[in-house]
Amino acid sequence: MGAVKTKRMPRAVREQQMMDAAVRTFGQRGYMAASMDEIAELAGVSKPLVYLYLNSKEDLFTACIRREATALVEAVRTGVVPDLPADRQLWEGLRAFFTHTAQNPDGWAVLHLQARTREPFAAEVTAMREEIVAFVTQLIVVAAREAHRDPNLPEREVAGLAEALVGAAESLAAWANATPGASARQAAATLMNFAWAGLGNLMEGRPWSPPATQES
Amino acid sequence: MGAVKTKRMPRAVREQQMMDAAVRTFGQRGYMAASMDEIAELAGVSKPLVYLYLNSKEDLFTACIRREATALVEAVRTGVVPDLPADRQLWEGLRAFFTHTAQNPDGWAVLHLQARTREPFAAEVTAMREEIVAFVTQLIVVAAREAHRDPNLPEREVAGLAEALVGAAESLAAWANATPGASARQAAATLMNFAWAGLGNLMEGRPWSPPATQES
Repeated sequence: MGAVKTKRMPRAVREQQMMDAAVRTFGQRGYMAASMDEIAELAGVSKPLVYLYLNSKEDLFTACIRREATALVEAVRTGVVPDLPADRQLWEGLRAFFTHTAQNPDGWAVLHLQARTREPFAAEVTAMREEIVAFVTQLIVVAAREAHRDPNLPEREVAGLAEALVGAAESLAAWANATPGASARQAAATLMNFAWAGLGNLMEGRPWSPPATQES
Repeated sequence: MGAVKTKRMPRAVREQQMMDAAVRTFGQRGYMAASMDEIAELAGVSKPLVYLYLNSKEDLFTACIRREATALVEAVRTGVVPDLPADRQLWEGLRAFFTHTAQNPDGWAVLHLQARTREPFAAEVTAMREEIVAFVTQLIVVAAREAHRDPNLPEREVAGLAEALVGAAESLAAWANATPGASARQAAATLMNFAWAGLGNLMEGRPWSPPATQES
Protein backbone atom coordinates (compact mmCIF):
# COMPACT_ATOMS: atom_id res chain seq x y z
CA MET A 1 0.00 0.00 0.00
CA GLY A 2 1.59 3.28 -1.09
CA ALA A 3 1.96 6.49 0.91
CA VAL A 4 -0.51 8.40 -1.28
CA LYS A 5 -3.27 5.85 -0.68
CA THR A 6 -2.44 5.96 3.05
CA LYS A 7 -3.01 9.70 3.24
CA ARG A 8 -6.36 9.55 1.41
CA MET A 9 -7.91 7.20 3.97
CA PRO A 10 -9.82 8.81 6.86
CA ARG A 11 -8.14 8.45 10.24
CA ALA A 12 -11.06 6.50 11.75
CA VAL A 13 -10.90 3.89 8.98
CA ARG A 14 -7.12 3.65 9.27
CA GLU A 15 -7.38 3.20 13.05
CA GLN A 16 -9.88 0.36 12.64
CA GLN A 17 -7.46 -1.36 10.24
CA MET A 18 -4.67 -1.02 12.78
CA MET A 19 -6.90 -2.45 15.47
CA ASP A 20 -7.98 -5.33 13.21
CA ALA A 21 -4.29 -6.16 12.75
CA ALA A 22 -3.61 -5.70 16.47
CA VAL A 23 -6.49 -7.96 17.59
CA ARG A 24 -5.30 -10.65 15.21
CA THR A 25 -1.69 -10.38 16.37
CA PHE A 26 -2.48 -10.13 20.11
CA GLY A 27 -5.01 -12.97 19.83
CA GLN A 28 -2.64 -15.31 18.02
CA ARG A 29 0.73 -14.40 19.58
CA GLY A 30 -0.25 -13.16 23.03
CA TYR A 31 0.29 -9.67 24.41
CA MET A 32 3.95 -10.07 25.34
CA ALA A 33 5.05 -11.77 22.13
CA ALA A 34 3.09 -9.49 19.78
CA SER A 35 5.34 -6.90 18.13
CA MET A 36 4.35 -3.45 16.92
CA ASP A 37 6.39 -4.15 13.76
CA GLU A 38 4.16 -7.11 12.94
CA ILE A 39 0.98 -5.17 13.68
CA ALA A 40 2.09 -2.27 11.47
CA GLU A 41 3.06 -4.62 8.64
CA LEU A 42 -0.24 -6.51 8.86
CA ALA A 43 -2.14 -3.20 8.81
CA GLY A 44 -0.10 -2.05 5.81
CA VAL A 45 1.17 1.08 7.55
CA SER A 46 4.43 2.32 9.06
CA LYS A 47 5.19 1.68 12.72
CA PRO A 48 5.47 5.44 13.49
CA LEU A 49 1.92 5.87 12.16
CA VAL A 50 0.64 3.21 14.61
CA TYR A 51 2.36 5.07 17.47
CA LEU A 52 1.05 8.42 16.19
CA TYR A 53 -2.54 7.16 16.12
CA LEU A 54 -2.62 4.79 19.11
CA ASN A 55 0.26 6.04 21.25
CA SER A 56 1.76 2.84 22.71
CA LYS A 57 1.42 -0.94 22.70
CA GLU A 58 -0.43 -0.67 26.01
CA ASP A 59 -2.90 1.94 24.70
CA LEU A 60 -3.39 -0.07 21.50
CA PHE A 61 -4.17 -3.19 23.55
CA THR A 62 -6.60 -1.23 25.75
CA ALA A 63 -8.33 0.11 22.62
CA CYS A 64 -8.61 -3.47 21.28
CA ILE A 65 -10.10 -4.74 24.56
CA ARG A 66 -12.68 -1.93 24.61
CA ARG A 67 -13.68 -2.49 20.99
CA GLU A 68 -13.95 -6.28 21.34
CA ALA A 69 -15.78 -6.13 24.69
CA THR A 70 -18.28 -3.58 23.34
CA ALA A 71 -18.86 -5.67 20.20
CA LEU A 72 -19.43 -8.85 22.23
CA VAL A 73 -21.90 -7.28 24.67
CA GLU A 74 -23.67 -5.57 21.76
CA ALA A 75 -23.94 -8.88 19.85
CA VAL A 76 -25.51 -10.62 22.86
CA ARG A 77 -27.91 -7.73 23.56
CA THR A 78 -28.97 -7.58 19.91
CA GLY A 79 -29.47 -11.34 19.79
CA VAL A 80 -31.95 -11.37 22.65
CA VAL A 81 -35.64 -10.64 21.94
CA PRO A 82 -36.96 -9.13 25.20
CA ASP A 83 -40.58 -10.31 24.97
CA LEU A 84 -39.80 -14.03 24.74
CA PRO A 85 -39.96 -16.35 27.77
CA ALA A 86 -36.73 -16.39 29.83
CA ASP A 87 -35.48 -19.73 28.47
CA ARG A 88 -35.90 -18.57 24.87
CA GLN A 89 -34.13 -15.29 25.70
CA LEU A 90 -31.23 -17.29 27.15
CA TRP A 91 -31.15 -19.55 24.10
CA GLU A 92 -31.03 -16.57 21.73
CA GLY A 93 -28.41 -14.88 23.91
CA LEU A 94 -26.23 -17.98 23.95
CA ARG A 95 -26.55 -18.43 20.20
CA ALA A 96 -25.53 -14.79 19.69
CA PHE A 97 -22.62 -15.23 22.12
CA PHE A 98 -21.24 -18.39 20.54
CA THR A 99 -21.79 -17.05 17.02
CA HIS A 100 -19.84 -13.91 17.89
CA THR A 101 -16.97 -15.76 19.59
CA ALA A 102 -16.79 -18.21 16.64
CA GLN A 103 -16.70 -15.37 14.11
CA ASN A 104 -14.17 -13.37 16.14
CA PRO A 105 -11.81 -15.99 17.58
CA ASP A 106 -8.91 -13.53 17.91
CA GLY A 107 -11.10 -10.97 19.67
CA TRP A 108 -12.32 -13.67 22.03
CA ALA A 109 -8.74 -14.80 22.70
CA VAL A 110 -7.77 -11.19 23.51
CA LEU A 111 -10.63 -10.86 26.01
CA HIS A 112 -10.65 -14.33 27.55
CA LEU A 113 -7.00 -15.36 27.44
CA GLN A 114 -4.89 -12.23 27.13
CA ALA A 115 -6.66 -9.42 28.94
CA ARG A 116 -8.74 -11.01 31.68
CA THR A 117 -5.91 -11.73 34.06
CA ARG A 118 -3.25 -9.22 32.96
CA GLU A 119 -3.11 -6.66 35.72
CA PRO A 120 -3.39 -3.25 34.10
CA PHE A 121 -6.08 -4.46 31.64
CA ALA A 122 -8.20 -6.84 33.68
CA ALA A 123 -10.62 -4.14 34.88
CA GLU A 124 -11.90 -3.55 31.32
CA VAL A 125 -12.76 -7.21 30.87
CA THR A 126 -14.14 -7.54 34.41
CA ALA A 127 -16.58 -4.69 33.66
CA MET A 128 -17.77 -6.44 30.48
CA ARG A 129 -18.08 -9.76 32.31
CA GLU A 130 -20.08 -8.13 35.11
CA GLU A 131 -22.46 -6.67 32.54
CA ILE A 132 -23.06 -10.15 31.10
CA VAL A 133 -23.42 -11.71 34.58
CA ALA A 134 -25.99 -9.01 35.48
CA PHE A 135 -27.89 -9.76 32.28
CA VAL A 136 -27.96 -13.52 33.02
CA THR A 137 -28.90 -12.85 36.66
CA GLN A 138 -31.86 -10.79 35.44
CA LEU A 139 -32.95 -13.64 33.12
CA ILE A 140 -32.89 -16.10 36.03
CA VAL A 141 -34.86 -13.68 38.23
CA VAL A 142 -37.46 -13.25 35.46
CA ALA A 143 -37.64 -17.03 34.97
CA ALA A 144 -38.17 -17.52 38.69
CA ARG A 145 -40.91 -14.87 38.66
CA GLU A 146 -42.58 -16.52 35.66
CA ALA A 147 -42.58 -19.78 37.61
CA HIS A 148 -43.75 -17.98 40.80
CA ARG A 149 -40.75 -19.42 42.64
CA ASP A 150 -38.99 -16.26 43.87
CA PRO A 151 -38.92 -17.28 47.55
CA ASN A 152 -37.25 -20.59 46.67
CA LEU A 153 -34.34 -18.91 44.88
CA PRO A 154 -32.49 -16.65 47.30
CA GLU A 155 -30.39 -13.83 45.85
CA ARG A 156 -27.10 -15.57 46.55
CA GLU A 157 -28.23 -18.75 44.78
CA VAL A 158 -29.23 -16.72 41.71
CA ALA A 159 -25.85 -14.95 41.74
CA GLY A 160 -24.06 -18.30 41.93
CA LEU A 161 -26.12 -19.74 39.09
CA ALA A 162 -25.34 -16.73 36.89
CA GLU A 163 -21.60 -17.07 37.63
CA ALA A 164 -21.76 -20.78 36.83
CA LEU A 165 -23.55 -20.14 33.54
CA VAL A 166 -21.13 -17.43 32.42
CA GLY A 167 -18.12 -19.58 33.38
CA ALA A 168 -19.59 -22.51 31.45
CA ALA A 169 -20.15 -20.29 28.39
CA GLU A 170 -16.58 -18.92 28.52
CA SER A 171 -15.14 -22.40 28.79
CA LEU A 172 -17.32 -23.75 25.96
CA ALA A 173 -16.46 -20.82 23.67
CA ALA A 174 -12.74 -21.48 24.08
CA TRP A 175 -13.34 -25.21 23.54
CA ALA A 176 -15.56 -24.68 20.46
CA ASN A 177 -12.95 -22.38 18.87
CA ALA A 178 -10.26 -25.00 19.45
CA THR A 179 -12.40 -27.93 18.19
CA PRO A 180 -12.70 -28.26 14.39
CA GLY A 181 -16.32 -28.61 13.29
CA ALA A 182 -17.88 -27.52 16.60
CA SER A 183 -20.62 -25.05 15.62
CA ALA A 184 -21.98 -22.07 17.55
CA ARG A 185 -25.44 -23.62 17.49
CA GLN A 186 -24.14 -26.90 18.92
CA ALA A 187 -22.30 -25.08 21.68
CA ALA A 188 -25.44 -23.11 22.55
CA ALA A 189 -27.57 -26.28 22.52
CA THR A 190 -25.06 -28.14 24.71
CA LEU A 191 -25.14 -25.33 27.24
CA MET A 192 -28.95 -25.14 27.20
CA ASN A 193 -29.12 -28.90 27.75
CA PHE A 194 -26.61 -28.58 30.54
CA ALA A 195 -27.88 -25.40 32.13
CA TRP A 196 -31.48 -24.69 31.37
CA ALA A 197 -32.78 -28.17 32.04
CA GLY A 198 -31.08 -27.77 35.43
CA LEU A 199 -32.39 -24.25 36.01
CA GLY A 200 -35.75 -25.30 34.61
CA ASN A 201 -35.87 -28.12 37.13
CA LEU A 202 -35.18 -25.60 39.83
CA MET A 203 -38.13 -23.59 38.56
CA GLU A 204 -40.73 -26.00 37.30
CA GLY A 205 -39.33 -29.49 36.96
CA ARG A 206 -39.55 -29.73 33.18
CA PRO A 207 -36.74 -30.20 30.63
CA TRP A 208 -35.74 -27.61 28.05
CA SER A 209 -35.34 -28.43 24.34
CA PRO A 210 -34.28 -26.17 21.47
CA PRO A 211 -37.17 -24.75 19.44
CA ALA A 212 -37.73 -26.76 16.25
CA THR A 213 -38.39 -23.61 14.21
CA GLN A 214 -34.94 -22.05 14.81
CA GLU A 215 -32.07 -23.07 12.52
CA SER A 216 -28.67 -21.51 11.99
CA MET B 1 14.14 -16.17 62.75
CA GLY B 2 17.88 -16.34 63.42
CA ALA B 3 20.63 -17.74 61.20
CA VAL B 4 21.32 -20.70 63.52
CA LYS B 5 17.71 -21.83 63.41
CA THR B 6 17.76 -21.36 59.64
CA LYS B 7 20.68 -23.75 59.23
CA ARG B 8 19.12 -26.43 61.41
CA MET B 9 16.01 -26.71 59.27
CA PRO B 10 16.06 -29.37 56.49
CA ARG B 11 16.15 -27.98 52.98
CA ALA B 12 12.82 -29.57 52.00
CA VAL B 13 11.03 -27.90 54.91
CA ARG B 14 12.68 -24.56 54.16
CA GLU B 15 11.67 -24.82 50.49
CA GLN B 16 8.05 -25.45 51.41
CA GLN B 17 8.11 -22.35 53.63
CA MET B 18 9.49 -20.31 50.73
CA MET B 19 6.79 -21.66 48.46
CA ASP B 20 4.08 -20.95 51.04
CA ALA B 21 5.28 -17.35 51.09
CA ALA B 22 5.54 -17.25 47.30
CA VAL B 23 2.02 -18.62 46.70
CA ARG B 24 0.62 -16.06 49.12
CA THR B 25 2.51 -13.20 47.50
CA PHE B 26 1.86 -14.26 43.88
CA GLY B 27 -1.80 -14.94 44.67
CA GLN B 28 -2.39 -11.59 46.35
CA ARG B 29 -0.10 -9.28 44.33
CA GLY B 30 0.02 -11.00 40.95
CA TYR B 31 3.11 -12.42 39.24
CA MET B 32 4.48 -9.15 37.90
CA ALA B 33 3.99 -7.11 41.08
CA ALA B 34 5.28 -9.80 43.47
CA SER B 35 8.84 -9.09 44.62
CA MET B 36 11.45 -11.62 45.69
CA ASP B 37 12.25 -9.30 48.62
CA GLU B 38 8.70 -9.63 49.93
CA ILE B 39 8.68 -13.40 49.45
CA ALA B 40 11.99 -13.81 51.29
CA GLU B 41 10.83 -11.56 54.14
CA LEU B 42 7.51 -13.43 54.46
CA ALA B 43 9.40 -16.75 54.50
CA GLY B 44 11.80 -15.39 57.12
CA VAL B 45 14.91 -16.04 55.01
CA SER B 46 17.41 -13.99 53.04
CA LYS B 47 16.77 -13.27 49.36
CA PRO B 48 20.02 -15.01 48.28
CA LEU B 49 18.78 -18.19 50.00
CA VAL B 50 15.55 -18.07 47.94
CA TYR B 51 17.65 -17.75 44.76
CA LEU B 52 20.01 -20.50 45.94
CA TYR B 53 17.12 -22.92 46.55
CA LEU B 54 14.69 -21.98 43.80
CA ASN B 55 16.94 -20.31 41.23
CA SER B 56 14.76 -17.48 39.83
CA LYS B 57 11.37 -15.81 40.16
CA GLU B 58 10.26 -17.76 37.09
CA ASP B 59 11.39 -21.13 38.51
CA LEU B 60 9.83 -20.30 41.88
CA PHE B 61 6.51 -19.49 40.16
CA THR B 62 6.69 -22.73 38.17
CA ALA B 63 7.36 -24.70 41.38
CA CYS B 64 4.33 -23.00 43.00
CA ILE B 65 2.08 -23.85 40.03
CA ARG B 66 3.18 -27.50 40.10
CA ARG B 67 2.65 -27.82 43.83
CA GLU B 68 -0.77 -26.12 43.80
CA ALA B 69 -1.99 -28.01 40.71
CA THR B 70 -0.90 -31.35 42.16
CA ALA B 71 -2.58 -30.57 45.50
CA LEU B 72 -5.85 -29.56 43.79
CA VAL B 73 -6.06 -32.64 41.57
CA GLU B 74 -5.11 -34.83 44.55
CA ALA B 75 -7.84 -33.24 46.70
CA VAL B 76 -10.50 -33.89 44.04
CA ARG B 77 -9.33 -37.48 43.44
CA THR B 78 -9.27 -38.21 47.17
CA GLY B 79 -12.72 -36.69 47.64
CA VAL B 80 -14.37 -38.99 45.11
CA VAL B 81 -15.52 -42.46 46.21
CA PRO B 82 -15.31 -44.62 43.05
CA ASP B 83 -18.12 -47.08 43.81
CA LEU B 84 -20.88 -44.49 44.22
CA PRO B 85 -23.32 -43.63 41.41
CA ALA B 86 -21.99 -40.99 38.97
CA ASP B 87 -24.04 -38.11 40.40
CA ARG B 88 -22.81 -38.82 43.92
CA GLN B 89 -19.22 -39.06 42.65
CA LEU B 90 -19.64 -35.67 41.00
CA TRP B 91 -21.15 -34.20 44.16
CA GLU B 92 -18.24 -35.48 46.27
CA GLY B 93 -15.75 -34.27 43.67
CA LEU B 94 -17.30 -30.80 43.57
CA ARG B 95 -17.37 -30.58 47.36
CA ALA B 96 -13.69 -31.54 47.48
CA PHE B 97 -12.89 -28.99 44.74
CA PHE B 98 -14.72 -26.07 46.37
CA THR B 99 -13.40 -27.00 49.83
CA HIS B 100 -9.84 -27.00 48.49
CA THR B 101 -10.18 -23.70 46.59
CA ALA B 102 -11.83 -22.10 49.65
CA GLN B 103 -9.04 -23.30 51.95
CA ASN B 104 -6.30 -22.31 49.48
CA PRO B 105 -7.52 -19.03 47.96
CA ASP B 106 -4.00 -17.87 47.08
CA GLY B 107 -3.14 -21.17 45.42
CA TRP B 108 -6.36 -20.98 43.43
CA ALA B 109 -5.61 -17.39 42.43
CA VAL B 110 -2.14 -18.47 41.25
CA LEU B 111 -3.60 -21.26 39.10
CA HIS B 112 -6.78 -19.61 37.82
CA LEU B 113 -5.80 -15.95 37.56
CA GLN B 114 -2.03 -15.73 37.38
CA ALA B 115 -0.73 -18.81 35.61
CA ARG B 116 -3.49 -19.97 33.28
CA THR B 117 -2.99 -17.35 30.61
CA ARG B 118 0.63 -16.30 31.19
CA GLU B 119 2.54 -17.64 28.26
CA PRO B 120 5.53 -19.53 29.65
CA PHE B 121 3.45 -21.04 32.51
CA ALA B 122 0.09 -21.78 30.92
CA ALA B 123 1.04 -25.33 29.84
CA GLU B 124 1.34 -26.49 33.48
CA VAL B 125 -2.16 -25.30 34.27
CA THR B 126 -3.58 -26.57 30.98
CA ALA B 127 -2.28 -30.06 31.82
CA MET B 128 -3.98 -29.95 35.24
CA ARG B 129 -7.21 -28.64 33.69
CA GLU B 130 -7.17 -31.40 31.07
CA GLU B 131 -6.80 -34.00 33.78
CA ILE B 132 -9.89 -32.63 35.55
CA VAL B 133 -11.85 -32.38 32.26
CA ALA B 134 -10.94 -36.02 31.50
CA PHE B 135 -12.15 -37.03 34.96
CA VAL B 136 -15.48 -35.21 34.50
CA THR B 137 -15.84 -36.63 30.97
CA GLN B 138 -15.43 -40.12 32.40
CA LEU B 139 -18.11 -39.42 35.03
CA ILE B 140 -20.54 -38.32 32.32
CA VAL B 141 -19.76 -41.40 30.22
CA VAL B 142 -20.36 -43.64 33.26
CA ALA B 143 -23.61 -41.81 34.04
CA ALA B 144 -24.77 -42.27 30.44
CA ARG B 145 -23.88 -45.97 30.64
CA GLU B 146 -25.77 -46.34 33.93
CA ALA B 147 -28.79 -44.78 32.24
CA HIS B 148 -28.26 -46.94 29.10
CA ARG B 149 -28.20 -43.78 27.00
CA ASP B 150 -24.76 -43.99 25.35
CA PRO B 151 -26.03 -43.65 21.77
CA ASN B 152 -27.91 -40.46 22.67
CA LEU B 153 -24.78 -38.74 23.96
CA PRO B 154 -22.23 -38.49 21.16
CA GLU B 155 -18.58 -38.05 22.14
CA ARG B 156 -18.51 -34.37 21.16
CA GLU B 157 -21.58 -33.60 23.30
CA VAL B 158 -19.95 -35.27 26.30
CA ALA B 159 -16.73 -33.30 25.72
CA GLY B 160 -18.74 -30.06 25.53
CA LEU B 161 -20.65 -30.88 28.71
CA ALA B 162 -17.41 -31.60 30.58
CA GLU B 163 -15.91 -28.29 29.39
CA ALA B 164 -19.07 -26.46 30.48
CA LEU B 165 -19.01 -28.07 33.92
CA VAL B 166 -15.33 -27.33 34.52
CA GLY B 167 -15.77 -23.72 33.35
CA ALA B 168 -18.77 -23.32 35.65
CA ALA B 169 -16.78 -24.73 38.59
CA GLU B 170 -13.82 -22.39 37.93
CA SER B 171 -16.11 -19.39 37.73
CA LEU B 172 -18.00 -20.36 40.90
CA ALA B 173 -14.78 -20.98 42.85
CA ALA B 174 -13.52 -17.47 42.03
CA TRP B 175 -16.94 -16.04 42.91
CA ALA B 176 -17.21 -17.98 46.18
CA ASN B 177 -13.74 -16.84 47.27
CA ALA B 178 -14.70 -13.21 46.54
CA THR B 179 -18.11 -13.47 48.27
CA PRO B 180 -18.07 -13.28 52.09
CA GLY B 181 -20.03 -16.11 53.66
CA ALA B 182 -20.32 -18.25 50.51
CA SER B 183 -19.46 -21.78 51.63
CA ALA B 184 -17.85 -24.61 49.70
CA ARG B 185 -20.91 -26.77 50.28
CA GLN B 186 -23.24 -24.07 48.95
CA ALA B 187 -21.11 -23.62 45.85
CA ALA B 188 -21.11 -27.39 45.23
CA ALA B 189 -24.89 -27.58 45.77
CA THR B 190 -25.49 -24.64 43.41
CA LEU B 191 -23.44 -26.32 40.71
CA MET B 192 -25.19 -29.67 41.22
CA ASN B 193 -28.57 -27.93 40.99
CA PHE B 194 -27.39 -26.14 37.88
CA ALA B 195 -25.50 -28.95 36.22
CA TRP B 196 -26.63 -32.34 37.37
CA ALA B 197 -30.33 -31.71 37.11
CA GLY B 198 -29.53 -30.71 33.53
CA LEU B 199 -27.27 -33.69 32.87
CA GLY B 200 -29.71 -35.91 34.73
CA ASN B 201 -32.50 -34.72 32.45
CA LEU B 202 -30.31 -35.62 29.53
CA MET B 203 -29.92 -39.10 31.00
CA GLU B 204 -33.15 -39.98 32.72
CA GLY B 205 -35.39 -36.98 33.11
CA ARG B 206 -35.26 -36.72 36.90
CA PRO B 207 -33.94 -33.87 39.07
CA TRP B 208 -30.92 -34.15 41.33
CA SER B 209 -30.95 -33.11 45.00
CA PRO B 210 -28.14 -33.21 47.56
CA PRO B 211 -28.16 -36.32 49.76
CA ALA B 212 -29.77 -35.58 53.15
CA THR B 213 -27.16 -37.67 54.96
CA GLN B 214 -24.15 -35.57 53.87
CA GLU B 215 -23.29 -32.50 55.90
CA SER B 216 -20.14 -30.39 55.95
